[in-house]
Amino acid sequence: MKINQHYLDLQSSYLFSNIREKVAAFKKKHPQEKVISLGIGDVTRPIPGIIADAMRKASAEMTHKETFRGYGEDQGYAFLRSAIARYYGTKGVSLNEDEVFVSDGAKSDMGNLSDILSEENSVLIPDPVYPVYVDTNIMAGREILYANGTLENHFLPLPDKDIKADIIYLCSPNNPTGAVYDKAQLKLWVEYALENDALILFDAAYESFVQDDTLPTSIFQIEGAKQCAIEVSSFSKTAGFTGIRCGYTVVPHALVLNGTQVYKLWLRRQTTKFNGVSYIVQRGAEAVFTPEGYRQCKANIAYYLENAKIIQKALQKAGIWYVGGENSPYIWMKCPKNMKSWAYFDSLLAQAKVVVTPGAGFGVNGEGFCRLSAFGEREDVRIAVEGILKSAK
Amino acid sequence: MKINQHYLDLQSSYLFSNIREKVAAFKKKHPQEKVISLGIGDVTRPIPGIIADAMRKASAEMTHKETFRGYGEDQGYAFLRSAIARYYGTKGVSLNEDEVFVSDGAKSDMGNLSDILSEENSVLIPDPVYPVYVDTNIMAGREILYANGTLENHFLPLPDKDIKADIIYLCSPNNPTGAVYDKAQLKLWVEYALENDALILFDAAYESFVQDDTLPTSIFQIEGAKQCAIEVSSFSKTAGFTGIRCGYTVVPHALVLNGTQVYKLWLRRQTTKFNGVSYIVQRGAEAVFTPEGYRQCKANIAYYLENAKIIQKALQKAGIWYVGGENSPYIWMKCPKNMKSWAYFDSLLAQAKVVVTPGAGFGVNGEGFCRLSAFGEREDVRIAVEGILKSAK
Repeated sequence: MKINQHYLDLQSSYLFSNIREKVAAFKKKHPQEKVISLGIGDVTRPIPGIIADAMRKASAEMTHKETFRGYGEDQGYAFLRSAIARYYGTKGVSLNEDEVFVSDGAKSDMGNLSDILSEENSVLIPDPVYPVYVDTNIMAGREILYANGTLENHFLPLPDKDIKADIIYLCSPNNPTGAVYDKAQLKLWVEYALENDALILFDAAYESFVQDDTLPTSIFQIEGAKQCAIEVSSFSKTAGFTGIRCGYTVVPHALVLNGTQVYKLWLRRQTTKFNGVSYIVQRGAEAVFTPEGYRQCKANIAYYLENAKIIQKALQKAGIWYVGGENSPYIWMKCPKNMKSWAYFDSLLAQAKVVVTPGAGFGVNGEGFCRLSAFGEREDVRIAVEGILKSAK
Repeated sequence: MKINQHYLDLQSSYLFSNIREKVAAFKKKHPQEKVISLGIGDVTRPIPGIIADAMRKASAEMTHKETFRGYGEDQGYAFLRSAIARYYGTKGVSLNEDEVFVSDGAKSDMGNLSDILSEENSVLIPDPVYPVYVDTNIMAGREILYANGTLENHFLPLPDKDIKADIIYLCSPNNPTGAVYDKAQLKLWVEYALENDALILFDAAYESFVQDDTLPTSIFQIEGAKQCAIEVSSFSKTAGFTGIRCGYTVVPHALVLNGTQVYKLWLRRQTTKFNGVSYIVQRGAEAVFTPEGYRQCKANIAYYLENAKIIQKALQKAGIWYVGGENSPYIWMKCPKNMKSWAYFDSLLAQAKVVVTPGAGFGVNGEGFCRLSAFGEREDVRIAVEGILKSAK
């Protein structure tokens, strides 16, 4: 009996536990002080009532013989898949509802898609990035290459012809940088993938934060992407579903690898190792697409983006370099006075009682940067930016 | 770019699609006839109101800032894990709540546990059995050995010292046979695992159907099992959650493989490739353990077991060999007149308008047998058994 030895190659993730420990130590020393966090990676606004009503109705249906539901449809209920396909229609992307797979969240699918791909593939992952792309591939024992996000490329790395990779992870709007690829940039990635017989796994979890109409909210808005990409998305940030759990993955029928239609592989994977999302949750997700649901979700996003604007203005005032915030809930700032990420974290906590997320936790290129989150209360954001302004003086 | 080539080794699963096609063809030919199914693998009784109330309350909480919940606890909420740990206490099994992982269902975990184990391990799988154990291991490219269930061993295969396997799948009460291991038999498996450094993956999804107090409902009721087993279970059949989706997996702290505590590997897998179960669903699952929830769930199970009794009596009357039904919703019958599974299926459909599940679909040892399910309406069961009685004449 052997365990998967690749798990032993995983590095312990100290980022958030380190933050927790440091904040706890500070609070112990200064029990009277209020600590404000700009490090929140979770939504905080309550969900629209119409979504809760849909889930309450669905819960009640389960108690009557006539309306009780057992196992659901393999890829998710048609009512939800067709709503998602219609949503893509509003983006100018035509989907068959059989190309949509309802999931319990983007993270699960981004990880589980690894199952249908050979372990011999090399992967190309932006740095800095959401850590689970790296971890899932270490678990599979794959060779990992990095696409460097830097101040010079505004943390939007583009393909390098000399680097050959089989699987490419892209996240736009990006976590942690908040940077968003434009269509010309995504086109370069699609062209690279088509030329190199590579597969793009596109994480669109933050797509609903995009306000600029010229920016892509789906990789399938780029010609040729249906031949080389899978898109994973989520209701988590769109509709406050981080605790309700629902997402979706789009695998185009046109995506064929080694002569095999990939959606058939993914269907087989999901029907073998997954049994679908709660009927109650799927009814809630359906309500996101009602006019009232959509309006209220957009109002929550507007609230977060107003927070982001307050942060941006403060950084501009202080002359601090940053990206993100217009079309994403995250802002990626260069630490003042060329400080390293953790040194800045420590000094900001000590002096201003403000918590940020050290960029070094997201990859080597994150050193010297910090992630600021707009997922907080307005008043807290106002107080926090004052602290950041002072720290830059 | 290569796909996981092992997927090409999977056989298409024709069992349920073949049944659907044959029934559709029959109905087309005989539109007036009512076809009754004893092939249902899904619950049909509505859930207790107290569970729906808990989910409705949880849905409403999500709409208020003060009670909104985002990302939940990594292994599932403590309120549910402690309820599950207390439930194990009633079985005489002492668990720490950190040994419990809440999941979206037993199928997901039975499949995903493969992730943390080396692909070089050989697996031992009973035949006949629930097909996904085989499929998930074909996907991983593992060598598969079989433990033969036969009429002679009452479809409860025991360890064979000459067969060395690293991972052992056990399912008791069994799907499809309804057979249940007794403690002495499970002890032999635990001893084999300990002697051979093997891991038992124990599927207890049907544990709540066990009525005989002397039979084990958890592998951890067997001494030594915490050193060699993981148990996967579910609310699907216990509480009618097939559409609500919630299960749990118990990984004991005492389970150490290659010097690594397995619960740490599983925690790492789940926090990297999973993001937990809906808060709303977890509140529903918690209500299963209230006195009223438990009583109503037990009443549903009693209803199904009464159906099973009707089926058993008919088989006894007809002198047909069978196992299962006392402590499980499934009955495994030998086809009358030594017919093969599909031949019997065809003749029963044609003559009695009754659908059963051909045993050959669950493995080579299933040939000549059929699975009968108690998950139907009482009146339908009464009519169906008349057809079976006639078929045996």
